[in-house]
Parts: sequence; C-alpha cells; structure tokens
Amino acid sequence: MIRFECDYTEGAHPLIMQKLLETNMEQTIGYGNDPYCEHARALIREACKQDKADVHFLVGGTQANTTVIASILKSHQGAIAADTGHINVHETGAIEATGHKVLPLTSENGKINATQIAEYVDAHWADSDHEHMVQPGMVYISQPTEYGTTYSKKELEDIYKVCQEKNIYLFVDGARLGYALAARDTDWSLPDLAANCDVFYIGGTKVGALFGEAVVITNPVIQKDFRYSIKQHGGMLAKGRLLGIQFETLFTNNLYYSISKHAIDCAMQVKEAFVKKGYSFLYESSTNQQFPIISTADMEKLSSRYTFSTWEKYDDSHYVVRFCTSWATKEENVKALCNDIADL
Amino acid sequence: MIRFECDYTEGAHPLIMQKLLETNMEQTIGYGNDPYCEHARALIREACKQDKADVHFLVGGTQANTTVIASILKSHQGAIAADTGHINVHETGAIEATGHKVLPLTSENGKINATQIAEYVDAHWADSDHEHMVQPGMVYISQPTEYGTTYSKKELEDIYKVCQEKNIYLFVDGARLGYALAARDTDWSLPDLAANCDVFYIGGTKVGALFGEAVVITNPVIQKDFRYSIKQHGGMLAKGRLLGIQFETLFTNNLYYSISKHAIDCAMQVKEAFVKKGYSFLYESSTNQQFPIISTADMEKLSSRYTFSTWEKYDDSHYVVRFCTSWATKEENVKALCNDIADL
Amino acid sequence: MIRFECDYTEGAHPLIMQKLLETNMEQTIGYGNDPYCEHARALIREACKQDKADVHFLVGGTQANTTVIASILKSHQGAIAADTGHINVHETGAIEATGHKVLPLTSENGKINATQIAEYVDAHWADSDHEHMVQPGMVYISQPTEYGTTYSKKELEDIYKVCQEKNIYLFVDGARLGYALAARDTDWSLPDLAANCDVFYIGGTKVGALFGEAVVITNPVIQKDFRYSIKQHGGMLAKGRLLGIQFETLFTNNLYYSISKHAIDCAMQVKEAFVKKGYSFLYESSTNQQFPIISTADMEKLSSRYTFSTWEKYDDSHYVVRFCTSWATKEENVKALCNDIADL
Amino acid sequence: MIRFECDYTEGAHPLIMQKLLETNMEQTIGYGNDPYCEHARALIREACKQDKADVHFLVGGTQANTTVIASILKSHQGAIAADTGHINVHETGAIEATGHKVLPLTSENGKINATQIAEYVDAHWADSDHEHMVQPGMVYISQPTEYGTTYSKKELEDIYKVCQEKNIYLFVDGARLGYALAARDTDWSLPDLAANCDVFYIGGTKVGALFGEAVVITNPVIQKDFRYSIKQHGGMLAKGRLLGIQFETLFTNNLYYSISKHAIDCAMQVKEAFVKKGYSFLYESSTNQQFPIISTADMEKLSSRYTFSTWEKYDDSHYVVRFCTSWATKEENVKALCNDIADL
Repeated sequence: MIRFECDYTEGAHPLIMQKLLETNMEQTIGYGNDPYCEHARALIREACKQDKADVHFLVGGTQANTTVIASILKSHQGAIAADTGHINVHETGAIEATGHKVLPLTSENGKINATQIAEYVDAHWADSDHEHMVQPGMVYISQPTEYGTTYSKKELEDIYKVCQEKNIYLFVDGARLGYALAARDTDWSLPDLAANCDVFYIGGTKVGALFGEAVVITNPVIQKDFRYSIKQHGGMLAKGRLLGIQFETLFTNNLYYSISKHAIDCAMQVKEAFVKKGYSFLYESSTNQQFPIISTADMEKLSSRYTFSTWEKYDDSHYVVRFCTSWATKEENVKALCNDIADL
Repeated sequence: MIRFECDYTEGAHPLIMQKLLETNMEQTIGYGNDPYCEHARALIREACKQDKADVHFLVGGTQANTTVIASILKSHQGAIAADTGHINVHETGAIEATGHKVLPLTSENGKINATQIAEYVDAHWADSDHEHMVQPGMVYISQPTEYGTTYSKKELEDIYKVCQEKNIYLFVDGARLGYALAARDTDWSLPDLAANCDVFYIGGTKVGALFGEAVVITNPVIQKDFRYSIKQHGGMLAKGRLLGIQFETLFTNNLYYSISKHAIDCAMQVKEAFVKKGYSFLYESSTNQQFPIISTADMEKLSSRYTFSTWEKYDDSHYVVRFCTSWATKEENVKALCNDIADL
Repeated sequence: MIRFECDYTEGAHPLIMQKLLETNMEQTIGYGNDPYCEHARALIREACKQDKADVHFLVGGTQANTTVIASILKSHQGAIAADTGHINVHETGAIEATGHKVLPLTSENGKINATQIAEYVDAHWADSDHEHMVQPGMVYISQPTEYGTTYSKKELEDIYKVCQEKNIYLFVDGARLGYALAARDTDWSLPDLAANCDVFYIGGTKVGALFGEAVVITNPVIQKDFRYSIKQHGGMLAKGRLLGIQFETLFTNNLYYSISKHAIDCAMQVKEAFVKKGYSFLYESSTNQQFPIISTADMEKLSSRYTFSTWEKYDDSHYVVRFCTSWATKEENVKALCNDIADL
Repeated sequence: MIRFECDYTEGAHPLIMQKLLETNMEQTIGYGNDPYCEHARALIREACKQDKADVHFLVGGTQANTTVIASILKSHQGAIAADTGHINVHETGAIEATGHKVLPLTSENGKINATQIAEYVDAHWADSDHEHMVQPGMVYISQPTEYGTTYSKKELEDIYKVCQEKNIYLFVDGARLGYALAARDTDWSLPDLAANCDVFYIGGTKVGALFGEAVVITNPVIQKDFRYSIKQHGGMLAKGRLLGIQFETLFTNNLYYSISKHAIDCAMQVKEAFVKKGYSFLYESSTNQQFPIISTADMEKLSSRYTFSTWEKYDDSHYVVRFCTSWATKEENVKALCNDIADL
C-alpha cells in the first residue's frame, strides 16, 4: 500500500537522522539550552531576518498552538479563528482546556480576511454589554490553511494591519509552512511572514523532521516568561537538543525549502493528473494537500493500492478526498498514482 | 567536562538509534496506531503480566502526569502527593493548570505512607464542611522518588490497599522506573508494581530512549477515552511509531533492565567512593541519584572537571549535591570521578 | 422613564420581601442547610413530581450554567448548544473558563432539534479521528429560548430521547422558565419538563425573586458531590436561607405561576399593539420577550419615554428591538406603551 | 439554641432591610450600573481616601477571591498565601480551578510576614530551573486572618514594601474587615489599608449585609477589564443595585464601623469570661472570633444551650472551639453565655 493520506508517514530526512546518530553519545545540558538549540535559533533568526526574535522548540502542533495562545491571552480573552481552523476542530478542545474560547469566523477556502476581523472586533466593542462576551484578544490563522490554500502577501499585511489597529495579536500556525513557502504562486518570503505577525511557528513534523515546531516570537511584548508556559503545558523536552539538531539541519543549506519544493512538485503532478481527467476540487490548492472530488467507484479503485483521506461527502455518489505529498514522497509512487488516475 | 548533573545528557541507546534508522523511510499510519506501537504494547503488557492493560505512549513526564491526572480526577478532586513530589514542585503548576489542586503530605525521604494517606482521607470526610475542601480523588507517588529512594513491596501494597479502601486511585510516576527495578535492594518486580496501582508509567526519557513514557492503565474503569485526553494535552505524537519503536527495543531481550542495571552499578561505585571518604548523604539512595553532602571547597574541586547539581544548602560550609548516573554513563568516567573523590 | 429593556429592573415580589423581613433576625445555620431551604426543596420536588430529585439554590444564571456543566462533563467533553444559546454568546466564556468547549449548532428561532443533535453526535463517532475532536457530552437548551420561543412537549421529548439514545445528558436552562410555563400556547407542565431532562433550573432572578435559581437534578447519576462544585464555583451563599425563603414563597399558593401569567398578559398586550399597527417580529414569541422590527424614527419616538433593548440591525432604516415584561410590570405602563405604539 | 458558631446566622442590619424595602419597586438598570451602586462606590472611595480606585460589588468571598486572583495572575503564576489561608483550605480549590497554584507559606497565628515572602520570591528567581516552578505573582493575606488575628500597620507596610520591591501584587481578603478595623488594638485605618495593597475587599456578608463584598482596586494597572472577569466567574448580579443599596447603607453614618464595634464589644466579653476561668486560647485574637481551648466536659455543657464550632482536637480531653460574635449578636445572649462560662 502506498500512503498519501497524510504528510507524516515516514521518519525524518536522512541528513537529520545522520546528525542525530553522529551526536548521539555526546553529553549536553537539557531543556533546550544546549549549543545545538542555540545554533538552530541563530539560523532561524537569520532566515527570518529577525535578529531579536525569541525562538523556542516544541514537539508538536497542538502543543505549540496551546502554549502560544494560553501564553498570550488574558483570562477573559479568546482567539479569533476560521471556523475550519485546526484549533477549532481538531485539537480536542485543547484551547478551551486552557480556559479560552475560540471565536470562529466563517471561512472561505479555509481563510478569513481583514474585513471580517475588523468587523468582529468593532462589533464587540460597540456592544454596550461587551463585558458579557469573550473579548477578542488575538487572531489565529494557518499558513497554509487546513485546506491547502495560502494567504497572499497583501492578505497577510491587511490582516496584520487590522490586528495592530485593533490592538490584538496575530499568531500564524505554520505546521506546513514549508509547503506554503515553496508553492509556485507564493508572493511572500519567510521574512515577509515574520514581519507581518507577532508570533508564528515553522513546522518540522510535516516537513522533514521526526517531530518539532519552531515557535518564533517577534513581538517583544509577548516574549517574556514563555519558557514557563512551555513547561506548564508539557512541552519542555528533556533532551531539547533533539529539536535543535533537527532545525539546525533543516536551516542549513536551504534544506527546509528544497525538500518542501519536492513535495510541491509531487503535489502538482497529482493535481494535474486529476485535472486532466476532468475532476474538480473542493478548493484551489497550490500546496501539498489536494482535495479532488471523486466518485465512490473511483475511490474504491484507487484505495486498492493507495491510502488517502476521506474528507467529506460531496453528494450521493461523490466524496471529497485528500491526497498529501511530502518531503518524503517517492517520485515512482507519484508516477504510479498519476498513471492510475489516468486509467480511471 | 564530564556530566553527572542529570540522567538525560545523551541521546538514545544505540539499538534504538539503529532501529529508528532502519525503519526511517517506511510508511506507517500516525498517532500511535501503527504496528510498532502495537507490538510494543504487547511486549509491555507481557512484561507487566497485565494482558488487559491499556498502554499509551507519551513524550515526556510532565505531559504524562498531567494527562493521567486530568483524565482521572473529577473537577472538584485533587491529587494527594508528597510535598517533594515532582507534580508539586517542578512542573510549573501543570496540574493546577488543568484545574486540580495537588494535596501535599509531609514526606520522609521523598516518600509518603499508607497511614498518612488514610488519615488525610478520613479527616476530609469527617469534616462537616468537607464540601468546602478539595476532595482527595487519587494518590500520586514516584517510584523511585525524586530523592532516589524507593517504596518496598510492602509499602506499595499498603498504599494501594488504603487507596482501594478509601475508593481513590493510585498513580505511580515511573520516570526513572528502570533504576528502581534494578536497585540492589528492590524486593518487587514490574508485575508487582502493575498489580499494586491503577495506572503507572515506564519512563523512557531517562532510561535509554530519546524520549517517551509508556503509560500503563491497569484499572479498566479509567481506561475509557484516554486518547481524547492525550490529544487535548498536546501529547498525541503524529509519528507515533517513534515511541513504539523505542519501547519495542527497550522491551526486547530485557534491554530496559540491563541498561538500568548498568546505571545502578555506576551509581554504587560513586556512592562507595563518597562513603569511603566519610561523607554522609541527604537520603539513603540505592538508585541512580546520589545526594552526598560536601563542602564548598570540595564542590569547587570537583566542578572543575565534572558537572553535578547543587540541590540545597546544608550549612554555612556544606551543600547537598546530586550526582546522576544513567544507562549511558561511561565506566571510565565513573572511575575518574571515584579517583577524584578519593583524592579530595 | 418607563423600563421595558429587561426583566430584572425591580426588586422582589412583595410577599418575598415581607418574608425576608419577618425572618431577618432569626438565627439559622449557613450554606443552604437551614429549614427554609429544606422546605423550599420539598415544595419544588412536589411541584416537579420528582420526589428523589436533588434541589440546589444558586444565585444567578451564569453561575448555574457553569456549575452544572462543569460538574457533568468529563474533561474532554463539550456541551452542544444553539449558536444563539446564552452559554455560547453572553457569559464571557464562563464555560470555556472551566475547560469545556461549547459545540454550537445552527439554531432556528433560537431552538435546536433532535435531528440535529443526533446527526452531530453520530458524525462525531463516525469520524475515525474522533479523539481529535471534543466529545459531545451533553446538550444545553433554554426554555424559553433567548428569543422568547419555546420548545413544545413533543420537541422536548424528542430531544431527550435522542440524548438518552446517544448516552449524553440534557440540561435545560430555565432562567425565564415561569414565562414559558405561563405562555398561552404551552402544552407541557413543570413535571413534563422535569421528566424530560437530567437537570434543569427554575429561574428566580427574572421571575419574582431578588436573585436565585433552583437547580433540579433528576438523574441520580449526576447528583453526587454537586455541593463541591457549587462551592468551587463561588456559588455557596453563606446565608443560604435567603434563597430558601424566596423559593419557598414562590412555590407557595402557586405564586411562581400567577406572577408569570401576569407578565405574559402584559407581553401579549404589547405584542398585539405592534401587530395591530402592522409591525412584524424577528421571531414569533409567546413569552415575555417581544422582538418587533421597527423603524429608526419609531425607535426614537418610543425611546423618549420608554427603555427597550436594541437587538440587531435589520436593514438600513430598521432595527430589531426587544421589549420585556415581567412579574413586576405595571398595567398602567403597558397601557401607556400600547397607546404610544398605536400613535406611531 | 443560641448560635455563636459563625458570623452569618442572621439576615441584614435593619437599616439595610428598610432601604431594600423602600426601593423595591423602583426600576433601575442592571449589572451594577445603577445610581445606588454609583453612590456606594463614591462613599467607599471617600472612606478609603482613594478617589481613583475602582470599586466592584460581588456576592461572596470565594467569588471575590477567585475573580481577583484569576484576573491578576498570568497563567504561569501563583498566589503566595498562608498555609492556613482561606484560599488554600476552604474554597474547594476554586483558585486551582482557574489554573493557578496557591503557594503556601508556613503561618504563625494565621499570619505570614514580609521576610518569608522576600525569601520565597528570591529563592524562586535564584533557582536556575525557575521556569520549572510556578512563578510567584502575588501575595494573598486575610485581614483579620482566619484565626481572628490581625496584621499591624507596620506589618502591612513591610509586606507591601516587599511586594513592590519584588514586583508582585498584594491582595487583602477583608471578609471580616470591619472586625479588624474595630478591634481595640488596631493601629491602622481603612485608608492605611487601602494605601498598602493593590486590591482588597470590604466584607459585607459577615458585617451587616445580606451578602456582598466590595472589591477596591487601587492599583490602576490591574483595574482594566475587571468586569469581564466578574461576568466570567458568575459574579455579575443582574439586580446589581441590591449590592449598591447595602454598601451605601453600610457606608452612611459610619454604620460599618459602629456595628463592627458592637461585635468586638460582645467578643471581648466572651473572651474575658473564658480568661477569668483560666482558659487559654489557641491564638490571641482581638476580633470577633475567639478560640478557647476547653475540655470535652465543658463542650458538652455549653452545647446544650449554644452552638459553636469545633475547630481542632487539642489533646485527648480538650478541643479548640470557636465562638463568633457579629453585628447581630444580642447583648442578652452574650450575658447568658458569660454566666454559663462562669458556672463551668
């Protein structure tokens, strides 16, 4: 069975495994204060062109989202998010478990926009009983979104501008950030993203690492005491260097970008295969997740050889399904899949 | 500099690294449902002689403690623990962050006993205003304790008997469980431990793994829905097999025990070196952590070549310090240290 | 200025004030264990025909909702509610502050229905990744709703049947329960309501009392330890008898019903006045809250003499407004208002 | 049976009842924005000589403690308190339920001191792993304490000075503040207290009101958004004027002080009666709670006619008991009790 159901089916990029092996019996101090973490932080700050940013390494995405949001918000505040946002649907209420409400906005293609945010915040303050409602304290967006779509540079700038005007923070979930960076229609860079939010993270779990997310806090106001929050939320890895070594490797010789580009190349081949056969898609995605709408008959055929996700029912005879590529996807598997799509 | 300040200064046992490397590009499903995790679960159930136990793999100790405790307790209940217990002092209030009070009992040598627990619970229910106080819902103990001491089989049985009589759960933190199992004066086995509590975990982070704790839930009443709690507390590792592979390796050919025994052998050498020179210890420890009381002058001498932890001030000219050995400690380093102690 | 903006502008029914005065210097024990509370409990159990129900007196609605929901749910569970439900919009995230997500369903006229609930719960369990989502643990509905509408007996029965089938609890917020009971088109009684949910409360704050909500727990499974939750959520009134005295009075000689009926009579007069002039309403309400859609010009005229709530913008020249009557509404004020409406 | 077991056995001072009755059918807006609340706020600000203080009215003590502490602390911070402090023992973990640990210090006579606080905070920051521990964010003290003792002006000043130096807040629980103010050995005034903390509350429930605590926030840094916290914690009373009317009455013509003085006069008579008979006390209390140590035989005799609290076992034949007086204590009852003590 060839797996396309998600982007975390393999281990780590061979260069990471090699470095972990080489350093395995070295002795370092714990909790992320070792030289590998320090070096990785420096590399990330440089890649983001943010020499005063704080960089912290966490193990996973839900952990990163929870730690950042709980650290930023005051107890009576909530996080504005797309109703389709990961924190609103797929984290078992991890945000609420820290006492904060997710404030969902209707999304389009998995995205929300600056106007919606402005209207929501304005409506809150305009209400004479605003103290009876959760105060919006921040905005959470995913880049790329859970549907593979991305925010353009202009969209990011507009959202951040609104956030600054309304005095709320902007946090960007970059669990698949590499795949947005490498998308062919992307008009922004890592420094652009870093300059247009208060905090974001660079996903490693889905982009080459065994695990790990690098949280980058650019706004000094929210940098203080973040390590307490990491520890409180169970994210302080004893052998913290494991994260440092992985991100050091990813941010050396442009590895994070080059392996992301590979995933995009694979995804575009799959996309074209479906397009050629006349399939339509739930959303127009230029990243590593593709959501074609296919018949149950075709699903059955493809599932004999490939795994993929059943996303949602489309109509009585069709489903939206998800095919994911990644840094680890083999060319030969993509070719096989494309051929089988052509034969449908 | 030779490090003895903690038991997580190196990576993982070479057999684990080898297995991670071998399986690196395999594709498996995520979130701990892969065959490696299944096999590791079977091995652990067998080692514990608990064929109906649920086994879950988490990344770290604070995460394991938080997830288990928040999963077990009702909202008005708290966890009885030694005042020196890890959850009471060194987890940045992670338990309280889930809404539960830690109910500290005065500890002796890092331990609490059955009588104390019985008296505390009885006193709660005897109070006519008991509803104004946190209801004790469980007991948390560490085996070995944070001070290297261990509970004997009789002590464990007595504590568990009281817990059952009082209708509260017993949870054993086994972050360093291997080192208690391998201690020379230990009169209990893994099945004994498993039979005398409702849930416990087998620490990997400090005993041979890169990271990971295997939570074993033997009481079926608290098995339900545990995976929701794992996800909610950020502990659902995407590439769950990383944990399965590590515990599979540790529970093959008795590796978990043999590497723990090595750490104990090293620790006993260090202990004897201090004893021979007439030093006394904060507590009598037969596990991998030793807490000698040494003069500031001796601290200075040793710290030129070795790292160790400063635990607490003993008097104006002495400190309690901690030396840790582990599965990874090199014989030559122990010898060097022992010689230097002899020369003090 | 004559106030119609809400149903809590006056103090308490004169019979309550009289009883509070008469008993003022009596000495009783605290925290709701006094004879007045005991008697009030007996009266309420009788009125509900639930002789084994637990009855607890809390001060306010948000407190009642929070205490009940936090007491019922397990940490990974959430409460299904109408998106317009009070807990979802007007309690400053009080439910989330206890760690639980509100799971909103699209409402019609402020109501949700059995089919929606069944579909939501089924969809949760059908999802292979259900552990990544908040588990629905209960349903919260308001009777009457925040929009003045009510659930019929059949609707209640259907909802409760689904809840029982799906093994989740049903909690009914009765902050304005009297006004639903007294509505002219109501086809259910207090015992009917009590028989068709697991827990509900009888609102006093808006129906004759200075303050107070009587929580009635009919399902024995969730009766245990509720007083701990009351205390933990700050709802254990020291002079608990104040609540007992008020509910004893309300449930003597049918007072709760008769004063509610008065409010309905007043509301129907206001409604008819608007209807006669051809106004339409946001929703068809037969209870004490009426939501006519009126022009900004008419709003201005009426607001010179009356207070009422601006609910939402309807179009460029119209608003939905809310007029509330209550047990305390004076006939003369209703007449004046009706005349002024006629003159618009 | 004559009740001395606590200070909340009666209703409210007659002047309060009269005012509630007079205003009962007036219409006012809700949630504490009415003229009575405004006036009460002005009176309290004047009494405290704090013209820029924010004053909020809450229903009860646990609610006040929870709301203030959750509002002040960041998620990784805890509240330093006496181990005997109300928040540490008698609020069913209400503070922990908001995610914060209570950090208990060993108390003497129910009190903690400036030196202890300084040492605790310094030790936190001196620890190289301080991020693994809860950060002290504030100090909570009770004036008078749960044992009837009081802090002198010097002690208050010293504690507040340390708090300011260490950059943590000081919160004073004044549930029985009137009785400390009126104590014969008190060397501070309400303005002195207000000037020596960041936030405190003036207890009404135990000092003349039906219920109610007036929270006074003098430090502008923590004034913002407090009403959100009140609502979130269920403390936003719909008919807020009930609190305004009560505190307006208490702070008119010095009523709060004069009725407190009456309680002290009564308490001193009881104290002297015990002293004359040679009884000793758990603590030297000059407020309305007295803790004599009496034999079980004497307990039995007194309990035939009076209620009082059994505090703790002293030895095999003696108990510490608590006698409370209050604003409502009748002279004749005190005389009867004193005579019966004399006859023991």
